[in-house]
Formats: sequence, structure tokens, C-alpha cells
Amino acid sequence: MNRIITVSREFGSGGREFGRRLSEALGIAYYDHEIITEIAKRTSLSERYVQDIVEHNPIRSFPITIGRSFYPAPNPVFEQSISVYQKQTEIIEEMASKSDCVIVGRCADYILKEQSPFRIFVYADIKSRISRCRERDSQNALSDKEIKENIALIDKKRGKYYRDYTGKQWGDRLNYDLCINTTNMSIKEMVPVIAKLFTT
Amino acid sequence: MNRIITVSREFGSGGREFGRRLSEALGIAYYDHEIITEIAKRTSLSERYVQDIVEHNPIRSFPITIGRSFYPAPNPVFEQSISVYQKQTEIIEEMASKSDCVIVGRCADYILKEQSPFRIFVYADIKSRISRCRERDSQNALSDKEIKENIALIDKKRGKYYRDYTGKQWGDRLNYDLCINTTNMSIKEMVPVIAKLFTT
Repeated sequence: MNRIITVSREFGSGGREFGRRLSEALGIAYYDHEIITEIAKRTSLSERYVQDIVEHNPIRSFPITIGRSFYPAPNPVFEQSISVYQKQTEIIEEMASKSDCVIVGRCADYILKEQSPFRIFVYADIKSRISRCRERDSQNALSDKEIKENIALIDKKRGKYYRDYTGKQWGDRLNYDLCINTTNMSIKEMVPVIAKLFTT
Repeated sequence: MNRIITVSREFGSGGREFGRRLSEALGIAYYDHEIITEIAKRTSLSERYVQDIVEHNPIRSFPITIGRSFYPAPNPVFEQSISVYQKQTEIIEEMASKSDCVIVGRCADYILKEQSPFRIFVYADIKSRISRCRERDSQNALSDKEIKENIALIDKKRGKYYRDYTGKQWGDRLNYDLCINTTNMSIKEMVPVIAKLFTT
């Protein structure tokens, strides 16, 4: 069976960079936005619309209501969302079956649970997260307060998405094998050390 | 500066075994009950009484009230507890200054914060924790329900102790550099892998 590493992360914790660098260090595939691109291709929806559905508009208790929908008449938005979710599951399973890989976000830890992925959660304190977001905000357009609000909003959405999709609490340590604190850490320097866990 | 690794752990997560084996794998000192023994020696109190004070009877907000105690008259129990706490801090600092080491529990992560210890938190799901406690209960004297209640009680005490002593939330991931899930894992097999993080 392929070695699958899933990375969930708090916004601004450097989790995406962590996942990408880890895949490079291990010489294995890396999937992140590629999943959205592939869903868009297969559903003929725009990437932006797909992203909006999978990140911001999850159907509450989707895994429970699917198969016994309470909608007697066809509901196009509902059907479209289901289709996007199904494609996401299908694509993530395909990717995981192809080769060893690192998958960032998208509830891959839950979708692939039968394959026992190694589940990492990346987090950091708020100061460190604001500072990481600031580095990306090259035009210095946002105040610290605005960045902080943004972080809270995105984490809330991720939490809701994860809960709706999996029925579990996002960030609950029991959903992960290893939780890594990136506060004041250089992801670049950290990854080669963590990568040792996966080499013999 | 010495490399200090602190291990905090949920009861039944195998954290103590984890700490001991990690120190063996790295060939460095290991401190756990030794701290109680040393406090007892220096205060001329019994080990049992010391253990009771440092684990079960912390003074609420101790670090705040000390130095500006509201007790106008001498209070022997209060004074004794302060003495035990002071000795604990002193002994942990001494141990950390001697050589590289692993210290389990006793708020060492907080006491040694100026030395930037590497702070590990070990946890597991309740089923796995019950099962680990069961292994220790060789006479099979307790029911699963009793073990579970015991776990909850000890964790509650540890949480209170940590909160009273540090003003922080025990188990809050931000207090640790790495949180390790030992659910269904063999600590013996896990430690050599984690030990790689500390070797060059």
C-alpha cells in the first residue's frame, strides 16, 4: 500500500509550505490545489466555483443525508454540490492509489481513513500566524487586526467544512497522529528533521 | 546549553514509558519519580506527602500569590507547600543544568521555559488508554468503567495542577512543540522513530 501523508493546518501556520517541502524532501507526489483543478475539469464547473463549494458551502451532515435525501424534487444546487463532493472523494482516492503522496487539506485524512494515512496537523500561535500572513501580503494592504480577523474567519470555515464533511471536530488532536507547532520556526529548516520520521 | 526534552502526558497514554524509552534511545538522563524522592530528601517530608502536595494539592494561583501572600499570620500548611514547590523548581533546574535529559511531568516545560526545552505531549484515545491501564492492572481488579473514571480523575487533577502552577491550560497544543498520538501504537516501536528527530 502507498504511504499517504495528509496535512491539515491552521491558516497562517505554514502548513501548506510544510506539506510541499515534505513531499519534496521525500521525493513523493504532492496534491493541494491540483484537486480543485481536477474536479473542475471533470464537472465542467469553474475552478472558482468548485473552490467555493468545497470550502465554503458544505452541505450540513452531507455524509448522513446523502442516499436518503429529503428533497422530493430535484434541487440543482444540491445535486451540483453532491457531484462536486463525489468527484473530490473519487479524485483523492485515485491520487492516493497512484503512488506515495502528501495531500494538503480537503479532509483527505477522513476520505482515506481505510488506507491508514499518516495524519499531520500543523499549528502555530496567533502572533506567528499573523507574521506569516504579513509576509504574503507584499503590498502591506491589511492591518494586523484585519489579518487576525481573516485568520479567524478562514479557520472557522475550515472547521465547519471538516465538521460537516466528517462529523468530527477540526483540530481535535485525536484526529491526527502528530501535531506540529510551527511557532517561530522556519518551515524550511524544520521539514528535513520531520522527514526523518518517514525514512528508514 | 543542554538539550532538555519535557514529556507531558494523558494518563494511560504510555507517556511515561515513552519518556523513559526516549531517554534510553538517546542515551541521556531521565527524571520522573526521582524528583519527588529528591524533594522528600531535602524537605525531610515523606515521599508520599510530597507526592500528595505536588500532584493533588496545588495552591490556587500559587505563582501570583507568592511574594504577596494574603496570610498575615504564618500558615504551616501553606508554608510547607511553598517549600515543596520551591524545592521542585530548584531540583528541576539543577537536573536540567547537569546534562541533556528527559523530564516527565512536574510542569518542567513551564519551569524550564527560559532554556527552551523541546516540549512533547503524549495522548491517545480513551479505548487505548483503558487498555494500557488494564495491562498494568495485573489482578484485573477494576472494571473498564472504573478505569475510565480513574483516568478522568487523574487527568482532571493533572489539568488543575498545571493550571494552578503555570496559569495555562494543560493539554493546550500551543504549550507543546509536538503532540504525539499513541492510540494503538507500540511505544517500544515508536520511540526509535521519534528519537531520529533528536539525532544528527
